[in-house]
Amino acid sequence: MDSHRTAAGDRPPHVVVIGGGFAGLWATRALARAPVRVTLVDRGNHHLFQPLLYQVATAGLSAPDIAAPLRHILQRQRNVTVLMEAVAGIDTTSREVRLERGDVLRYDYLLLASGATHAYFGHDAWAAHAPGLKTLDDALHIRRRILSAFERAEIESDPAEKRALLTFAIVGGGPTGVELAGTLAEIARHTLKREFRNIEPRDARVLLLEAGPRVLSTFPESLSAKARQQLQALGVDVRTGVPVNAIDAGGVLLGEERIAARTVLWAAGVAASPLARALEVPLDRAGRVPVQPDLSVPGLPDVFVAGDLAAVQQDGKPVPGVAPAAKQMGRHVAAAIAAHLAGKPAPPFHYRDYGNLATIGRMAAVVHLGKLKLSGALAWWFWLTAHIFFLIGFRNRLVVMLNWTWAYWSYQRAARIILGRDEDNPNP
Amino acid sequence: MDSHRTAAGDRPPHVVVIGGGFAGLWATRALARAPVRVTLVDRGNHHLFQPLLYQVATAGLSAPDIAAPLRHILQRQRNVTVLMEAVAGIDTTSREVRLERGDVLRYDYLLLASGATHAYFGHDAWAAHAPGLKTLDDALHIRRRILSAFERAEIESDPAEKRALLTFAIVGGGPTGVELAGTLAEIARHTLKREFRNIEPRDARVLLLEAGPRVLSTFPESLSAKARQQLQALGVDVRTGVPVNAIDAGGVLLGEERIAARTVLWAAGVAASPLARALEVPLDRAGRVPVQPDLSVPGLPDVFVAGDLAAVQQDGKPVPGVAPAAKQMGRHVAAAIAAHLAGKPAPPFHYRDYGNLATIGRMAAVVHLGKLKLSGALAWWFWLTAHIFFLIGFRNRLVVMLNWTWAYWSYQRAARIILGRDEDNPNP
Repeated sequence: MDSHRTAAGDRPPHVVVIGGGFAGLWATRALARAPVRVTLVDRGNHHLFQPLLYQVATAGLSAPDIAAPLRHILQRQRNVTVLMEAVAGIDTTSREVRLERGDVLRYDYLLLASGATHAYFGHDAWAAHAPGLKTLDDALHIRRRILSAFERAEIESDPAEKRALLTFAIVGGGPTGVELAGTLAEIARHTLKREFRNIEPRDARVLLLEAGPRVLSTFPESLSAKARQQLQALGVDVRTGVPVNAIDAGGVLLGEERIAARTVLWAAGVAASPLARALEVPLDRAGRVPVQPDLSVPGLPDVFVAGDLAAVQQDGKPVPGVAPAAKQMGRHVAAAIAAHLAGKPAPPFHYRDYGNLATIGRMAAVVHLGKLKLSGALAWWFWLTAHIFFLIGFRNRLVVMLNWTWAYWSYQRAARIILGRDEDNPNP
Repeated sequence: MDSHRTAAGDRPPHVVVIGGGFAGLWATRALARAPVRVTLVDRGNHHLFQPLLYQVATAGLSAPDIAAPLRHILQRQRNVTVLMEAVAGIDTTSREVRLERGDVLRYDYLLLASGATHAYFGHDAWAAHAPGLKTLDDALHIRRRILSAFERAEIESDPAEKRALLTFAIVGGGPTGVELAGTLAEIARHTLKREFRNIEPRDARVLLLEAGPRVLSTFPESLSAKARQQLQALGVDVRTGVPVNAIDAGGVLLGEERIAARTVLWAAGVAASPLARALEVPLDRAGRVPVQPDLSVPGLPDVFVAGDLAAVQQDGKPVPGVAPAAKQMGRHVAAAIAAHLAGKPAPPFHYRDYGNLATIGRMAAVVHLGKLKLSGALAWWFWLTAHIFFLIGFRNRLVVMLNWTWAYWSYQRAARIILGRDEDNPNP
């Protein structure tokens, strides 16, 4: 039997980590010197730098630019085994994780960090018409949809259909929706200029639809207003305060207004990974696991939850589902396990808020750091530097910098390649 | 009606080019100053630098690194319309090209340059088990297969199955087969070193299976022998002179020997694009169109064929299906059309052979230029320089150079990301 299969008597305790995102990977790395064996299980082979996923969806970066193989990142950490596998079930009584191909991992400690997926608030039929953005496959699907819409508009002779093909509706005014809308407007106005003969790409309409009163609602109101101005300056039609009531192959029903759009993108809602249900503990409304102050699960002191899957309150507010929070939680879980092994009590988790950034487009972003509020070019440089700095891997940083420099001067985008077949496209 | 749809009376003659590969794109560019309107039709949105496709299949480069949007390349050439469309049929009597979505293009001149696809010599059932390498989608499929085989071997507990997962059989000892085998051996020996806990990647077997007497049969015998030595030095098991008699989910039947291999790659045969049949003229055994000395089709002076689809003899030998030959044919067709419009006779096509290059692996290649025969490190540098030089686009050259420099020093590969779902994998 292979070394990672069992939690045997005289071997170091076995920590099973589910999910190689920010929480799972940071926990794994923080366990490098702990007297444990770690098995990291992820259904993919890579860690994804999710904050730049919208760049892959909008053809600015290639998929490998923002991803790195988990086993390569962890190559030198000898106490880790990486398994590319989906998890089929968790039994907290027998302390077992069942993998999809049938293997079973016995654990002494479990970290569940399988994150979130997009949610359509009960409207599952919308999924086929309004893809969401969580994985690299999602991003490549959206890239294909966006690029194909312009290609099909070039061929289309019916004016109404042409107009629908050149209408892009983004549902949800959070950071992802804002990024997608700003970048799409830039593509239509600049990137594709002069490339078509039968359409004028700058006539494309980009709509950002937010049911709440303002975009970027986790930012102060003044920055929401700045973001809206910057989006409008880029040519985005921002609509707030009206709910989307229906999405189908023809477009969107916004309140009572019918908007014909062949490309609808979903950036409105996330739901916790369904694996949370396997713990058989009460979940919050979004399906997340309300955890103890040390991030363990109530009643299961050897099971921890971190990242987007954990519902953590601090000072009466929820800790946000952002990368820095996930990393901090991951490191905290590693410390809690180490404390437990040393017979010491685990300290409570404390989230350190390093600020909130969102980019909008060329030279347009908003930054909120404590009392500091920035928008425009300075905020954009700040965002850019932070994101390159936090990318994993020297090569990735260099390639992303190179692509961005090139994109900045040429207005071009590096990955305007349509991959995959039309069968994948529900709007044939 | 859109400007590109018809060949109207007082407008410049309409040239329809089918295929945006080397032949079609070079013909289109050479028509920049001719008094014609050009419509370039391709089912994809990009020109592909096919000589580096094996690098995408082996995770060294991302798909966008070796591809560029056709309409971006041709952005400044105002007499060209690019249509992303599949061709459904050709009527040489009414001079019409019928597109899949129903539109019809009337032409005054037609260039058919739709290239080749892989052929299984009547064994179509082999296709599911031994993918070939012609498009970016093929390359990403092969990449997923290769990377997943190592991942699955890490989990597998049955030794025989583990061994089959770590056995890679490449069928066909031409340039593509040699490149794939050499690179795979390097991945197993160097790239994945120290990354797995339950397998030793360097124990992977890479077999190169060639039914003929030697690999790289279009090179002089001495260079074939050098190539074989270099492959063996990299750890490739080269088998020549024995045919593959069967391929199924379990592996390959080589002569009478059964080789259990979960990954079989097909680099053995190409067949002409089926569009050739639409011309209703006699084709050669490989389905290519035997053309006149000016590359027009016998009996159809306004229809030309260029690139891999054209069967051209010169000095009693066929002109090879390589990128330089396709570019030369493309440019020749442009000149023939210009001559025809000027009322002059078209000169016969003459292929200038600039030599033959094939790469094998790190510091290993063979080069044949007239009387010059190189192998090893010098040949490899020659190959490298030529391929970077001929890549389209400044950005692509820079990114590829950067990736290769990084790969050379780190033994790493930039695009080790598994994309797509298991449903695509016929070996579940």
